[in-house]
Amino acid sequence: MDDLWYSEYHAPTVRFSIKVNSQLYHEKSDYQAISVFDSAEFGRFLTLDGIMMLTERDEFIYHEMITHPEIAVNPEIKNVLVIGAGDGGVARELIKYKQIEQIDVVEIDERVVEVCKQYLQKTASGFDDSRVQLHFQDGLKFVRRKENAYDLIIVDSTDPFGPGEVLFTKEFYGSCFNALTENGILVNQHESSFYKGDAKEMQAAHRCNAQIFPVSRLYQAHIPTYPSGHWLFGFSSKGLDPIKDFKPDYWNSFGITTHYYNTPLHLGAFALPNYIKELLADEK
Amino acid sequence: MDDLWYSEYHAPTVRFSIKVNSQLYHEKSDYQAISVFDSAEFGRFLTLDGIMMLTERDEFIYHEMITHPEIAVNPEIKNVLVIGAGDGGVARELIKYKQIEQIDVVEIDERVVEVCKQYLQKTASGFDDSRVQLHFQDGLKFVRRKENAYDLIIVDSTDPFGPGEVLFTKEFYGSCFNALTENGILVNQHESSFYKGDAKEMQAAHRCNAQIFPVSRLYQAHIPTYPSGHWLFGFSSKGLDPIKDFKPDYWNSFGITTHYYNTPLHLGAFALPNYIKELLADEK
Repeated sequence: MDDLWYSEYHAPTVRFSIKVNSQLYHEKSDYQAISVFDSAEFGRFLTLDGIMMLTERDEFIYHEMITHPEIAVNPEIKNVLVIGAGDGGVARELIKYKQIEQIDVVEIDERVVEVCKQYLQKTASGFDDSRVQLHFQDGLKFVRRKENAYDLIIVDSTDPFGPGEVLFTKEFYGSCFNALTENGILVNQHESSFYKGDAKEMQAAHRCNAQIFPVSRLYQAHIPTYPSGHWLFGFSSKGLDPIKDFKPDYWNSFGITTHYYNTPLHLGAFALPNYIKELLADEK
Repeated sequence: MDDLWYSEYHAPTVRFSIKVNSQLYHEKSDYQAISVFDSAEFGRFLTLDGIMMLTERDEFIYHEMITHPEIAVNPEIKNVLVIGAGDGGVARELIKYKQIEQIDVVEIDERVVEVCKQYLQKTASGFDDSRVQLHFQDGLKFVRRKENAYDLIIVDSTDPFGPGEVLFTKEFYGSCFNALTENGILVNQHESSFYKGDAKEMQAAHRCNAQIFPVSRLYQAHIPTYPSGHWLFGFSSKGLDPIKDFKPDYWNSFGITTHYYNTPLHLGAFALPNYIKELLADEK
């Protein structure tokens, strides 16, 4: 077998490498370079512009943690907007809930969806539900036209450069605020706090959220294939608090099967280490 | 500058690499190969037999999390036995507590202590306290002779092969049980749960603990330079429960400065993801 390695720089002098069996697919779409690899340890994995998006082995952690905590705070969510997420993983988690009526997925790059449908069926299965509507558009343009329309907006963006950059601007978050209903919640992937470059992005994203939303809190998960393995998510809302309004019994009554998330862990996810709290305090 | 990289295999097909400025020190002691490197991202770091032990940048997470949670459960701990920990990091955390009277550090390899005193003064500073007694002995032989002597035993071992192997046996944990006082707590580093090899060690260590101690619980921390970044610790005791007997106000009254640990995070650390709970259930 070829001695073939996929490598990613988690910091300028830190490299994470996965031995791959083969590159299953590669193209340059109108927006980005899309690749799918096959590996022994992580199964298949998707990269965009040379950055790891998901692996079959650990994508459940990211997709569960960007979905279930929010629904456990407002279990009556009916209308959901998902921005990015062309792999289908977020939609797959959402369709587990019977009470959800509408799931709009806005992905700028149709090719990502097509490639995932062909090579990553475990996540792309999220699109196999009549409540899921795919919109191949720019996320900012889509959300700008919406008002009081969604109970939950999930921003499953790439990193804050390239096609995902607009999803880290104040204008975008302001438009999301307007698109949300009174009890609305916004969750966005929030980079990591460990390596300096990531920590700056994390601080900037938090600053944007905190300026626009009355409630803005970070929470964490252990995601082995993302830089440092310590990944953050932002929970922002018009009023609902991720701890005070948390409804564990209601959520548990749904009987949803998860492999990472559970209701005791919900509270733990919001309990951040001191060094991250200090990074956030520096922003105020 | 030389294009010099330190690499470690976190799994047979997964490699983590750090660009190093230089190798500051290397020797083969009677027990193991000892190296110290200097790097831009992590500062200096220590390896034993080619395995990462600590970096200046993130060692605080490991050393805080193997010390403070136990003292927050029994804030009246006076006599502590530390096994391994030749770098001094555990002792550095322990000497922050005025009420601790005696800290015996049992390290099999005197050379580790000498090298750390010379190159890793930030951790080796833990030895600069008259309550700390160093014993250059085999941990099992030392603990076997003790009875009802320690309120806390901290097992800061290397991985379960080579000189650290004996610290993962049932005989060793049984001797620790006898060496502990009535309210005694044992904490040990417990490997990780993500990569298959690590997960097997984690299951084996938990099985040993659970057979000997009435209370045996796992908790977690985000440690970027350890495999998967998701590291586990084992809290075992003769009766004290890490949640029910947790005394956050008492611990906070000490005014100890920490950069990772805090009392809300204590509860979160014990809230494990479902997939880890399933791995532990498989053991029963």
